[in-house]
Amino acid sequence: MTLSLDHRQQSARDWFEALRTRICDAFEEIEREAGSDAAFEFTPWERTDDAGDEGGGGVRGVMKGKVFEKVGVNVSTVGGSFNPEFAKTIHGAEEDPRFFATGISLVAHMANPHVPAVHMNTRYLVTQKAWFGGGADLNPPIPYEEDTAEFHARLRAACAPYGPDMYERYKEWADDYFYIPHRETHRGVGGIFYDHLESDSDALFDRNFAFTREVGEAFLDIYPKLVRRRMNDKFTEEEKHAQRVWRGRYAEFNLIYDRGTLFGLKTGGNIDAILMSLPPEANWD
Amino acid sequence: MTLSLDHRQQSARDWFEALRTRICDAFEEIEREAGSDAAFEFTPWERTDDAGDEGGGGVRGVMKGKVFEKVGVNVSTVGGSFNPEFAKTIHGAEEDPRFFATGISLVAHMANPHVPAVHMNTRYLVTQKAWFGGGADLNPPIPYEEDTAEFHARLRAACAPYGPDMYERYKEWADDYFYIPHRETHRGVGGIFYDHLESDSDALFDRNFAFTREVGEAFLDIYPKLVRRRMNDKFTEEEKHAQRVWRGRYAEFNLIYDRGTLFGLKTGGNIDAILMSLPPEANWD
Repeated sequence: MTLSLDHRQQSARDWFEALRTRICDAFEEIEREAGSDAAFEFTPWERTDDAGDEGGGGVRGVMKGKVFEKVGVNVSTVGGSFNPEFAKTIHGAEEDPRFFATGISLVAHMANPHVPAVHMNTRYLVTQKAWFGGGADLNPPIPYEEDTAEFHARLRAACAPYGPDMYERYKEWADDYFYIPHRETHRGVGGIFYDHLESDSDALFDRNFAFTREVGEAFLDIYPKLVRRRMNDKFTEEEKHAQRVWRGRYAEFNLIYDRGTLFGLKTGGNIDAILMSLPPEANWD
Repeated sequence: MTLSLDHRQQSARDWFEALRTRICDAFEEIEREAGSDAAFEFTPWERTDDAGDEGGGGVRGVMKGKVFEKVGVNVSTVGGSFNPEFAKTIHGAEEDPRFFATGISLVAHMANPHVPAVHMNTRYLVTQKAWFGGGADLNPPIPYEEDTAEFHARLRAACAPYGPDMYERYKEWADDYFYIPHRETHRGVGGIFYDHLESDSDALFDRNFAFTREVGEAFLDIYPKLVRRRMNDKFTEEEKHAQRVWRGRYAEFNLIYDRGTLFGLKTGGNIDAILMSLPPEANWD
């Protein structure tokens, strides 16, 4: 089945796909600087869920390079009906299980343990409601004060035009969300997380879409700087091992708690795309 | 708080702890044959859940050897109250959240990818009901027909005195349980799984306790044979890598689907003991 998109849906999709291309270009440029010719491989997939419901699909992009040990940048645009049980848990789908979703999702696991891993995801969802959601968080195996401060400062700047308390609220939301209860620790040094930015009217859509674009721009501005800062630093086998242990925690979070993973598994998403967030190598000692 | 145990509870606990010691001895003996002096390290822990409810604890046993890359053998004996939400999901705890549980749990991840990994767990639970449960399954990264057949034959023999259809039923249960829906594959080549062997009377307790002991004896009899068969086989870096990818699936199963993991996390179990099942190294390519 081919999905038909309304104007807002198409605009959001176009943005996510264009952002994907710009990010992939920026990451490949970093590989060139490191003397590597690594490039993204893009694999399209089509959606079919357990019940045979189909509609839309996405493109999974993966690069395994010298600087980026494994980075996935996915876009997807899907539509159909939630299964009835799952529908009850989704905003605006309690009475009518039909949905549309488009978004970009990115996770980078870095070869050098001094370089922070990162996650970024923004999305536009439509049920009987329509809203934007997203976030970005920094996940350094070895945290540096300076990197953390600059990452947060750039996100704060992205939030600033949209209200004086937005950054604080979304930062706190990220602190709540990216927490691993059974380890009593956060998975990284945080960032922002937001959801249900209600976008039912044109005015609300325009405002929240602009904010979501700002988050993407902020990510594209700051993360390559952080990568370049430490990508040539020396590291020891002990530091690499510590990174792999740290990645075990990251895998635990994504498999046990992450709502995006659950959403993908429940809506007939592409398994390889959903689980691209998992680290290339993890250790549990 | 010290738990007080009744006669049945104490008998079950004694068995699980004695079995633990015999298994650890058998595994250390294999390490000696391989010229290694690796030994189990035993770490006791005490239970406290989120609500401050406490009672009992356990001993986590871990060995990292030449043959056993990482093997965990845990015993625990805990009691207290389930949280109300979780109680609703547990047999016999719907009206009264108090519980007692004692058991042994074992996962072995092997250095040589030709040697199958294995899991075994047996337990005795008491709520307003009392029952035994457990199982064992074989998880070869590289499956050999011969190993699979002998593992199943030994479990079939253990089941035989307890009813003509027991093995078939428990084998099917394992096939249902050890399945990874999002990968559309089983995590290994199966074994047996059983639960809710009702043991409210002395006669039922005696019978089901004897069966549970048989499962332990069968494991102790067959698994060391399978280890010795291939522990000295040569393997390639490709085979070791395939083992690490296979372990990624194993980690996915344990973190997303395993009820034992969930039970531990929900009842204030020891995190290191619960997650000892996770592989020492895993890859997600």
